[in-house]
Amino acid sequence: MRSDVILLGHGSGGKLSHELLDELIVPALSGLGQSDQNDAAVLAAQQGLLAFTTDSYVVDPIFFPGGNIGDLAIHGTVNDLAMVGARPIAISVGLIIEEGLAVHELRAILESMRAASRQAGVAIVTGDTKVVPRGKADKIFINTSGIGVIDHDVQISGSNARVGDKILINGTIGDHGMAVLASREGLQLESCITTDSAPLNNMVEVLVEKLGNQLHALRDPTRGGVATTLKEIAVQSRVEITLQETLLPINFAVAGACGILGLDPLFVANEGKLLAFVAPEAAEQALSIMLSHVHGKHAAIIGEVTSTAAGKVRLRTAIGGLRAIEMLAGEQLPRIC
Amino acid sequence: MRSDVILLGHGSGGKLSHELLDELIVPALSGLGQSDQNDAAVLAAQQGLLAFTTDSYVVDPIFFPGGNIGDLAIHGTVNDLAMVGARPIAISVGLIIEEGLAVHELRAILESMRAASRQAGVAIVTGDTKVVPRGKADKIFINTSGIGVIDHDVQISGSNARVGDKILINGTIGDHGMAVLASREGLQLESCITTDSAPLNNMVEVLVEKLGNQLHALRDPTRGGVATTLKEIAVQSRVEITLQETLLPINFAVAGACGILGLDPLFVANEGKLLAFVAPEAAEQALSIMLSHVHGKHAAIIGEVTSTAAGKVRLRTAIGGLRAIEMLAGEQLPRIC
Repeated sequence: MRSDVILLGHGSGGKLSHELLDELIVPALSGLGQSDQNDAAVLAAQQGLLAFTTDSYVVDPIFFPGGNIGDLAIHGTVNDLAMVGARPIAISVGLIIEEGLAVHELRAILESMRAASRQAGVAIVTGDTKVVPRGKADKIFINTSGIGVIDHDVQISGSNARVGDKILINGTIGDHGMAVLASREGLQLESCITTDSAPLNNMVEVLVEKLGNQLHALRDPTRGGVATTLKEIAVQSRVEITLQETLLPINFAVAGACGILGLDPLFVANEGKLLAFVAPEAAEQALSIMLSHVHGKHAAIIGEVTSTAAGKVRLRTAIGGLRAIEMLAGEQLPRIC
Repeated sequence: MRSDVILLGHGSGGKLSHELLDELIVPALSGLGQSDQNDAAVLAAQQGLLAFTTDSYVVDPIFFPGGNIGDLAIHGTVNDLAMVGARPIAISVGLIIEEGLAVHELRAILESMRAASRQAGVAIVTGDTKVVPRGKADKIFINTSGIGVIDHDVQISGSNARVGDKILINGTIGDHGMAVLASREGLQLESCITTDSAPLNNMVEVLVEKLGNQLHALRDPTRGGVATTLKEIAVQSRVEITLQETLLPINFAVAGACGILGLDPLFVANEGKLLAFVAPEAAEQALSIMLSHVHGKHAAIIGEVTSTAAGKVRLRTAIGGLRAIEMLAGEQLPRIC
C-alpha cells in the first residue's frame, strides 16, 4: 500500500480500489480469491434448507478488550445462522470505511475476521468496499451476511418454546456490553472485563445432534440483552417465562460495574451467548454438553416456561419476589455491536 | 410511529426497535414476515449452484432523478447475481441510519426497495437495522446481499472472454453517474438526466436461454464505468479489447454535461447496464434480444476481443486513432452508489 491511510479514491472502483483489494483486503482475508473476482461468488450445490442472515456492525470503539469490530462481525453472523440450527457455509463482508482510517487498523480488523472465520469453519467468499469522506461515517462499519445449510430435521424457532421447557444459557451475562462501555468511557475498573464474543455454531451442532427435537428454541441475547431476547421468545411462542435471579451466571466485575453505573445486566448485550429452550427431560444433558464446551464453562439452567400467559417474562428475585421484565425501552448503550 | 425522525433508541434492539420494525420497516418492505422474526431466514432447498454477493450503498444524495438509494441497492445486488448467470432468489437488507433521518424519507426508500424487488421477482427475506448518532453517518447507508441459483450449464465469468468475441452493451453509458452528479451539485442542465438504475436479471435469463455457451462473460459497468470494467475483464481473461468510439451509445444530455465538466463518459458509473461478451456468430441474436427488451432499447455492439495481448484495452477514436484505456486512476465522482 502506498498510503498509510484510506483515501477516497480507494472506493472509486478504479486503480486505487484494485490496489486496496490486491495488496490488503484479499491477502488479509485470504478467502477472497484474487483470480476469480466476479460480481458474485459461486458456491457448490447444497442439500438441505438454506438459512440467510445479515447484520451491520457499528460498534464504538472499533477495538475493545478481547476483540474488535472484525471478529465481532464474523461471530455475530455465524451465531445468527446457528440460532436456526444452520451450519454456516459462506460469509460476505461489506466494508464502509471513513476516509483517513489507518491502514494498520484496517489490516488488524481484516486479519481478525480471517482468524474468526477459520475458527468457525466458514469461508469468506465475497465482499465489497466503499469509502466515504471524513466525517460521513465513524472509522469503519462492517456488514456481514451469511448463508447456512440445515441438513437435519430438528425444528428450531423462537416460536417453538413450550410450557415446561427449561431455559439454559452458556455462561455469564453482560460481558460484551460492559467491555465495550468500559473501553469507550475509559473506566478504570478493578479487573479487566473482556468481551464474550465467540462463535457458537460448534456448540449448536452438538446440541442438535444429541438433543434432536428436544431442542426447541435458540437465540443469542445481543442488543437488548437476555431480558429483551426472552421477551421476544415469550411473544413469538405465546408463553410465559419465569427466570430465577439467583441462577443467573454473572462475572463479579461485570456485576460491580453494572452496580456502579446503575445498569441491569439482564439488558446488557452479549456476543458469545445463547439461550436454549429444551424439553425438561433433556435439560441436564444440554447443560453437560455446554459445560464441557470451551464456550460454555459457566453454563446454567436459569429458568423455565411456566404457562401459556402469552408474552410475559417474570424474574423471581433473590429475596423471593416476582418482577415483571419488559423489553429495553430506550437506548441503554448505543453502538454496542 | 410516534416520532417523525429516527432516534438512537430505534437501534437499541429493545422496544423502540421493535416499534420501528413492526410499524414501518416490515409493512414497507412487506417481505419480512412479522410472524417469524428469527435470527436468520429459512429458505427452501435449491437445485443448482448458489451465487452469493454483497454491496453497500452510500450514494449522495439519497434521492436523485429517477431513483433513490433504496431501489439502487436492490438493482445493484440483483444485477451482481445476474452477471454470473444466477437467478436471484433472496435478498437481505442491512440499514445503517443516522439519528435524525426523517421517517417519511425512510418510508419512501423502503417502499421503493419493495417495488424494485417485486419488479425483479426476488424476495427480501431478512434484515438488520442500526442507528448511529448524528454526524457519525450520512443519512442512510444500505447493504444488500443476495443469493441466486444457477440451474443451467452455461459458464459465465469475467475470465471467459475469448478472441473474436463481440462486446455488447444494452444502452447509453454514464447516465447514472451524471444524474447523481447533476443532482448533487444542483447543476441546471438543459434536459433532465435520469439514472439508468434497473434490474437486468430478466434480460440475462433470456440471453442465457437463447445463446447458451455462446455467452461468455457479463459484467455491469458500475463504479469506474465501462472503461474500468473492460480493463478488469481484459486482465482476468488475458485478452486485448478494442472499442469503437463511434459505436458507443450516449445520451445527448450526458455527453453535453460530461463535456462541460471535463469528464470522460467511459469512466462514469452505470447502474442498469451490462457488458456482454458473446461468440461472433451469436452477436446479432444477442443484439436483437437486447433491443427488444425494455432495458435494452439503445443496445449496441461496441467492440470486440482482438488479441491475446493480456490486459490491454484500446479505443479506436472517431478520427481513426487508437487510444489506450486504463482503469480510473483516482476518484472521479465519490459516492456514486
